[in-house]
Amino acid sequence: MPESRLPVIALTVGEPAGVGPEISLRAAWELRHEVRSVLIGDAAYLAMIANEINPDIRFMGISLEALRYAGMPGCPPDRLTLIDCPLNAHVKAGQPDPRNGRPVLHTLDVAIECVQQGWADAMTTAPLQKSIINDAGVAFSGHTEYLAEKTGTAQVVMMLAADANAHLPQPLRVALATTHLPLRQVPDAIQAGELLRTIQIVDADLKQKFGIASPRILVAGLNPHAGENGYLGREEIDVIIPVLQQARALGIQVEGPYPADTLFQQKYLAQADCVLAMYHDQGLAVLKHASFGLGVNITLGLPLIRTSVDHGTALDLAIQGTGLADIRSMVVAIRSAATMATHILKS
Amino acid sequence: MPESRLPVIALTVGEPAGVGPEISLRAAWELRHEVRSVLIGDAAYLAMIANEINPDIRFMGISLEALRYAGMPGCPPDRLTLIDCPLNAHVKAGQPDPRNGRPVLHTLDVAIECVQQGWADAMTTAPLQKSIINDAGVAFSGHTEYLAEKTGTAQVVMMLAADANAHLPQPLRVALATTHLPLRQVPDAIQAGELLRTIQIVDADLKQKFGIASPRILVAGLNPHAGENGYLGREEIDVIIPVLQQARALGIQVEGPYPADTLFQQKYLAQADCVLAMYHDQGLAVLKHASFGLGVNITLGLPLIRTSVDHGTALDLAIQGTGLADIRSMVVAIRSAATMATHILKS
Repeated sequence: MPESRLPVIALTVGEPAGVGPEISLRAAWELRHEVRSVLIGDAAYLAMIANEINPDIRFMGISLEALRYAGMPGCPPDRLTLIDCPLNAHVKAGQPDPRNGRPVLHTLDVAIECVQQGWADAMTTAPLQKSIINDAGVAFSGHTEYLAEKTGTAQVVMMLAADANAHLPQPLRVALATTHLPLRQVPDAIQAGELLRTIQIVDADLKQKFGIASPRILVAGLNPHAGENGYLGREEIDVIIPVLQQARALGIQVEGPYPADTLFQQKYLAQADCVLAMYHDQGLAVLKHASFGLGVNITLGLPLIRTSVDHGTALDLAIQGTGLADIRSMVVAIRSAATMATHILKS
Repeated sequence: MPESRLPVIALTVGEPAGVGPEISLRAAWELRHEVRSVLIGDAAYLAMIANEINPDIRFMGISLEALRYAGMPGCPPDRLTLIDCPLNAHVKAGQPDPRNGRPVLHTLDVAIECVQQGWADAMTTAPLQKSIINDAGVAFSGHTEYLAEKTGTAQVVMMLAADANAHLPQPLRVALATTHLPLRQVPDAIQAGELLRTIQIVDADLKQKFGIASPRILVAGLNPHAGENGYLGREEIDVIIPVLQQARALGIQVEGPYPADTLFQQKYLAQADCVLAMYHDQGLAVLKHASFGLGVNITLGLPLIRTSVDHGTALDLAIQGTGLADIRSMVVAIRSAATMATHILKS
């Protein structure tokens, strides 16, 4: 992108009855001099929330039709770009309405189109309420799966990333080989083909989206002590070790499997760009501890950049009115998307 | 204990071919003005290692017979007390010898006797080599199981504890509902009776051994998101939640089950004295990350206090000679045992 142009992030505001609209507006406004956020949501509702938060916030509305005709126009730096996606039902804070399920889902389609058409460089999503979309009659298991389907992507990888902070001398990135599965189903879900593909996706995206020329990946074992030579489980010997050999044969710098309880020590993290954990709690407990809950969720493997906050709709907070939600995770999510876009555009 | 008397710790030096003798000696010497360590191992070998480490180290030898006859005598503060348990075979650093398996195991018996007879207030163990004890013809699955059997204890609980440090505003204690099991066996090992007993042991020992009048225990779920109301696994609904209700009915302050990835955030830890994790990697990855590997291993549920280092025999280091091993974990292990002894004696 030209030096003079800010990265453009398509920002879906999520479930309107939750904190999504508020945190999207506050974060977009705070970052307006470094990132051009294009908010995607109900214009009337966003204007109302914006007025509560900060009467200085001004918008420049743009329709999907205009975008399709002429692309993304310029925007003065003291305005937030807004694509209106009208809701069907009046929003009551804290009470999601199934009638708004389809319009909320439509904001994702608009964001995907923005990135695929080059009107935006990346997308960031505020949280939505899965159950409401399902109640609206659309089978929906999550942002990640929806984006994979809409972009024709066979396999994606969930990564959480934390910036360096006072307690974390360097950024921490944790990718997951499996995500939202009952623990009992995890061992059988660790399959050679998928695991190799996961490693390839992590490696490729660390290069492309993170700008790391030669990424180093540490892989955790599935079992305690990484199976202790088969004494505490055989998945390392039967699946993980052979897959790591295949990955190395493909030129990927991957090490392990290491015991998950020791590999998160700083002396090992200092030599890695990413940890690949075998399952949810194995990887995310450390990440959220070390990042104080300010991790950013990144979907790897998609043909576009997508980040999101790592928290839910917080309906309880939304009921209490604006001004209470913590926008830090959204700020990190938008900023991460912008940084990744810069890497892609430079390469 | 009288103000004037130092806590007395029976200290087994572990596998002689590993770093155990060295770290035991160095830590005991460093702490000699705050803890009276009673080393239990081969006197001739310990004298040789002591001479390499620091020629100032002096011993006061005492035989088991003398102890049995007259109890633990006083000792000048510039000497380390030593109970001689002679080995059968010459020690070659880095090469454990099965002929020394039984003498090494005997040091544990001596330490248990010391504590049970009141000659010592607690015991701390240096690492030993399980396989060598088994090669010596004694079925042995670990210190913890051996101590449970020798003291007639039906159920024990493994806890790892970390002191507060620059990155950890308060001590972190993590107890485990299951320990060294293949991940595949974990879900079925979470049984109501054992889990309730585990919680009772943790509660009782936090009171007695840690001096916490009214301990608060946070319990992790087994599944990601603690099962998300049964959507990601049913063990929370079927086993864990009913057990927590039973525990609360017994007056125990226990909360959960909480998602393991969020409960280790400082805002939750600040309100708890201990986390109970359902399995090894769920609890220990954070603990070892936050403690920089300086956790101390504490066996709860025994009728005596036992701590140990949280690392192995480090045969590779022992081969390279003395002076390389990190004694910090041993220092913490001895000091923790002494602190716990003080709580017991005060109560």
